[in-house]
Amino acid sequence: MSQQERLVIGLAGLGTVGGGLVEMLQKNERDILNRTGRRIWIKTIAVRNINKARTLPENCRLTDNPLELAQDPDIDVVVELMGGKDTARTLIRESLLNGKHVVTANKALLAEHGEELFALAAEHGRFLGYEASVAGAIPIVQTLRESLAGNHISSVMGILNGTGNYILSEMTSHGLDFATALTQAQAQGLAEADPTLDVDGIDAAHKLILLIRLAWGLHYPFPELSVQGIRGLRRMDIEFAREFGYRIKLLGQAKEVDGKIEAGIYPALIHYTMLIARVGGAYNAVRVEGNALGSLFLHGLGAGSRPTASAVLGDILSIARGAEINNTGYRRALLPPASILPAEDAMTPWYVRLMVKDISGVLRDIAGAMAEENVSMAQVIQKAECPEGVPIVFMTHATTGRAIHAATRKLEKEGLLLEQATCYRVFARDSGTETGSGTGPEAVPEADL
Amino acid sequence: MSQQERLVIGLAGLGTVGGGLVEMLQKNERDILNRTGRRIWIKTIAVRNINKARTLPENCRLTDNPLELAQDPDIDVVVELMGGKDTARTLIRESLLNGKHVVTANKALLAEHGEELFALAAEHGRFLGYEASVAGAIPIVQTLRESLAGNHISSVMGILNGTGNYILSEMTSHGLDFATALTQAQAQGLAEADPTLDVDGIDAAHKLILLIRLAWGLHYPFPELSVQGIRGLRRMDIEFAREFGYRIKLLGQAKEVDGKIEAGIYPALIHYTMLIARVGGAYNAVRVEGNALGSLFLHGLGAGSRPTASAVLGDILSIARGAEINNTGYRRALLPPASILPAEDAMTPWYVRLMVKDISGVLRDIAGAMAEENVSMAQVIQKAECPEGVPIVFMTHATTGRAIHAATRKLEKEGLLLEQATCYRVFARDSGTETGSGTGPEAVPEADL
Repeated sequence: MSQQERLVIGLAGLGTVGGGLVEMLQKNERDILNRTGRRIWIKTIAVRNINKARTLPENCRLTDNPLELAQDPDIDVVVELMGGKDTARTLIRESLLNGKHVVTANKALLAEHGEELFALAAEHGRFLGYEASVAGAIPIVQTLRESLAGNHISSVMGILNGTGNYILSEMTSHGLDFATALTQAQAQGLAEADPTLDVDGIDAAHKLILLIRLAWGLHYPFPELSVQGIRGLRRMDIEFAREFGYRIKLLGQAKEVDGKIEAGIYPALIHYTMLIARVGGAYNAVRVEGNALGSLFLHGLGAGSRPTASAVLGDILSIARGAEINNTGYRRALLPPASILPAEDAMTPWYVRLMVKDISGVLRDIAGAMAEENVSMAQVIQKAECPEGVPIVFMTHATTGRAIHAATRKLEKEGLLLEQATCYRVFARDSGTETGSGTGPEAVPEADL
Repeated sequence: MSQQERLVIGLAGLGTVGGGLVEMLQKNERDILNRTGRRIWIKTIAVRNINKARTLPENCRLTDNPLELAQDPDIDVVVELMGGKDTARTLIRESLLNGKHVVTANKALLAEHGEELFALAAEHGRFLGYEASVAGAIPIVQTLRESLAGNHISSVMGILNGTGNYILSEMTSHGLDFATALTQAQAQGLAEADPTLDVDGIDAAHKLILLIRLAWGLHYPFPELSVQGIRGLRRMDIEFAREFGYRIKLLGQAKEVDGKIEAGIYPALIHYTMLIARVGGAYNAVRVEGNALGSLFLHGLGAGSRPTASAVLGDILSIARGAEINNTGYRRALLPPASILPAEDAMTPWYVRLMVKDISGVLRDIAGAMAEENVSMAQVIQKAECPEGVPIVFMTHATTGRAIHAATRKLEKEGLLLEQATCYRVFARDSGTETGSGTGPEAVPEADL
């Protein structure tokens, strides 16, 4: 590809992100020319309704047939921002087959059909860029694929869904309950009318699959990932967690344990001294641990028109510069499957809240059930009675979800609990990392104001 | 360059970082092979004393003549980790002239002689990697050069010197005075016997020059940069700043103001709600604002054997993959000079501490001197008398350093001050950025535990 010519784009989708891309291409034309030496021309935009009134960039035409982009010999790069899994998949396939580079923000498609698409891109020697599909403007794809390539990665975790984090932030800082915070997120355009993808952790799960692929070069099948969202999360748990010194965040976490990958999406308690506990509003953050770098923490806007366009543009400009093809970060076209450590078998401290009728006697039964499963309780707080009963809240030493759930199910069966037990993982930093001091790399050494 | 062959390295310097590189190349050999398809062979290491006892990697020889690396036709990449400006400069020049790629961690050399070396690399079409020269393991070079290439950058700021930050952290969290904290840093091997480069801001200044080059494609001559270090910084200022809700950090900051670059290294007050205020110990952090991405915050280890080796390895593996040559991030070989907005003319709020004999009457004179220079005082605290006098501490609305210094010099001349005025900039987030809510992107919405 000559780097002197203009680069010709076919864009599928002119929604929030597509609109941001068009805007930033115009606004930053000079910066882009200085950096790449090339002009970027959007020749065709595929939209659902070509009759809708729009302001288009110069010399740009519309089509309502996305596949036209894959067939146009003028087009160098197809940018897929339409979403969905069917037409988008066909479009990306056809584009690669026809020798075009592809840039996409479609995390769902890549998480569920990435193997096929990456193999196709490798076969045809084409760039398949997806920086925008994980954590918006945060350059985590490029960072894992290139900057950290000399590391053996031990852990990747992050707040990967801005909508979910916004809801938790509002519950935490303004004392809203889940339903009110969700309604507010919807009113602000942060959450969809059907919030399933965000609230039930599915969007974050798609992103985590991509991060696992980048960190370890392994294929972790999406249906096998343990996914728990924040729907119905209770304010009282946020408050109890705070008493122990923790914040509750919707976390995507993957780590390597004895050659296996332990991964999942779940609401988790994170100690307030960690930077990731401080991620507010619709922000995203990713924390990576590697054997050379120690820990790296990246924080930025995970969604929205311009931030997502920033990531899409990063990929387009790599193509414009003639960057080498390095889509997955690994040489083999087909990645081996991950050995999976089931989330239920992973060792971690747990937060448990049980609602009981009254304290007397019950605490002995609870302690007994936990002991039977070898769950060791670290801290217990008994709370004043509330309308739903008397909460007994405790943190355990590291144990498995299997043990926690066996113990709580037993208590449920014995009729001791007024409602299902609430159990969340507690995020503990690995002790074996190279990140230094006992107080931890991200500790806030100062007392707060 | 064939990607099937092994990549042959000549390494200059086997100190902390060089040793880390050798270690990580061995430890992560399989990861590297999976990612690049190539083996990395260190053929020759140039050291000062070849007779010193060392464990060397297999098939590796020593030399005490670094220039040998530039002349060996087997060597693909010369890795310069020896430091200093004379031999290192010659080595890099000769290596590029002989068609070798170069990877260096030498910020001083690139800040002061970068124009010459980047031009030479461009002329010979060779990779000149320097990720390790700014903020250690934080991939800020690659991020600015590639991931954010579609942005117009408005601001780059960071904690760019881990030693300085460690000293300030210790002073803040353990109430040490400057001299004690410095001695402690020296005892821990974090500070040199001669701490000038770290403590007087020079190391951070070198890095800021490189960040300005990456963010705007401009050459900002090193001697013109305004540099103020933390030597002798007083504990009481840390405490007073805290009363206003701020932390004092040694900050490198550059921003674009009406087409000019305002830049400098100085101790500055940063509001406690910002993530950058929370960077503890020897960590580094960089915060970038761009018109597409909003704000991005990166946090990691800024120095040390393995973290720096992580960055060096990132560059080496880019070369191994056959990455396109994109050293400066811009097409022109010679960058235009920056239009400089002198630090003294930059508008910012200021923190001022004046030591006076007693309050009565003096406050009127101070207010008068400030008013004459159009400095508007925002908050004033009078503190109890201490051995050195009575401190009068205030924060101003945005004004220039020129006005602040004119006013305080006048008070000094009038004999009203018992010691020289202490004046620090206060970091205020730009209001014009796209990062969202009124409380700011990095606000901690929750009250602290």
